[in-house]
Amino acid sequence: MPEFRVALALPRWIAAALPPPDARFPSLEERMDLVIRLAQENVRRGTGGPFAAAVFDAETHRLIAPGVNVVVSQRCSAAHAEILAIMLAQRMRQSHDLAAPGRPACELVASAAPCAMCLGAVPWSGIRRVACAARDEDARAAGFDEGDKPTDWPQALARRGIVVVEDVRRGQAVAVLAEYARGGGPIYNSRSASADAHARSSARPRRRSGVGTRRS
Amino acid sequence: MPEFRVALALPRWIAAALPPPDARFPSLEERMDLVIRLAQENVRRGTGGPFAAAVFDAETHRLIAPGVNVVVSQRCSAAHAEILAIMLAQRMRQSHDLAAPGRPACELVASAAPCAMCLGAVPWSGIRRVACAARDEDARAAGFDEGDKPTDWPQALARRGIVVVEDVRRGQAVAVLAEYARGGGPIYNSRSASADAHARSSARPRRRSGVGTRRS
Repeated sequence: MPEFRVALALPRWIAAALPPPDARFPSLEERMDLVIRLAQENVRRGTGGPFAAAVFDAETHRLIAPGVNVVVSQRCSAAHAEILAIMLAQRMRQSHDLAAPGRPACELVASAAPCAMCLGAVPWSGIRRVACAARDEDARAAGFDEGDKPTDWPQALARRGIVVVEDVRRGQAVAVLAEYARGGGPIYNSRSASADAHARSSARPRRRSGVGTRRS
Repeated sequence: MPEFRVALALPRWIAAALPPPDARFPSLEERMDLVIRLAQENVRRGTGGPFAAAVFDAETHRLIAPGVNVVVSQRCSAAHAEILAIMLAQRMRQSHDLAAPGRPACELVASAAPCAMCLGAVPWSGIRRVACAARDEDARAAGFDEGDKPTDWPQALARRGIVVVEDVRRGQAVAVLAEYARGGGPIYNSRSASADAHARSSARPRRRSGVGTRRS
């Protein structure tokens, strides 16, 4: 039997693309600008899908951990930007709970609204605030599937005490999605056997499969 | 800046608890029996929550990868049994897509119905069939939160061509949940600051926090 261990890594360019560890990002727009730059860099360097995320300390507004989509390179369908940022933040905090007592609250800033998986991951993580740029429909317009999310997902998180802020720098994030869709045509529908099988057995519109079957 | 890498490992006892690599599990009940044994072992050895999962080759009925809940030990809220099994299976298959053309279909067998996060992860993984033992209400009865799932989640997966089989060995899985709830009392509500904050800002019943805030 093999060793039962998996490792996930962000692309090597990430470290050089980040600000110094003590840099502060007092406004949500500044935090989102950083995240969108990472999404754009991920597209331009061809290291993953057009999605990035980061966990920030909600008091100091310092970056705790970044994330970009590395589904294909890491051979892991769960390697969405939000999941990587959360996992890395929890490693930094040495806890599975980013809302552990005595520690500053954490904010997840994402270049797009979370897919069904990442949305489901948020309440378990201890994240207390979620900010996103592109909307579900923007991701869909670029060919990505968001999964079966509650239509009132911001309210569903709010009922758990998690604040959601939408449409932060939405236009810039949409531009990155569009750049990816323009340049990444060959990637979409690359796994047609899978997509065909889904289409055959499904009453829904055919899913477009691509980087990570979907996104983030 | 630290290295942007996370590693997740299953407990060391797993290898010895598994059948030989060429063992076949022709019936769904046999596959579930193995999974429930892993969940029980995880409880008895104190290595995580009362949840296990495994990915099987749907043609040969051989085990591809196991998973158990390692949220607390791995300091990762996403380290649910299903996520670990999927990640390990994708590592074995060297692909983010378990439905890649030319490879046998994969089945996810889980000791409980998937939480919102794991449910969201299934379509992106390439898993084509999901079997579970305990129901959402069984997990809730043991103190775990399943997240905001569509009430018709088996139908939602079916619309994507993913078959769901419920209630396989449900009684045995419920017994493991009950054993954990009996023995693991001190773990529940251990992070009351977080739970209190949720309760203050929420109209919903207070969530019980424990191993991984939740499960799998």
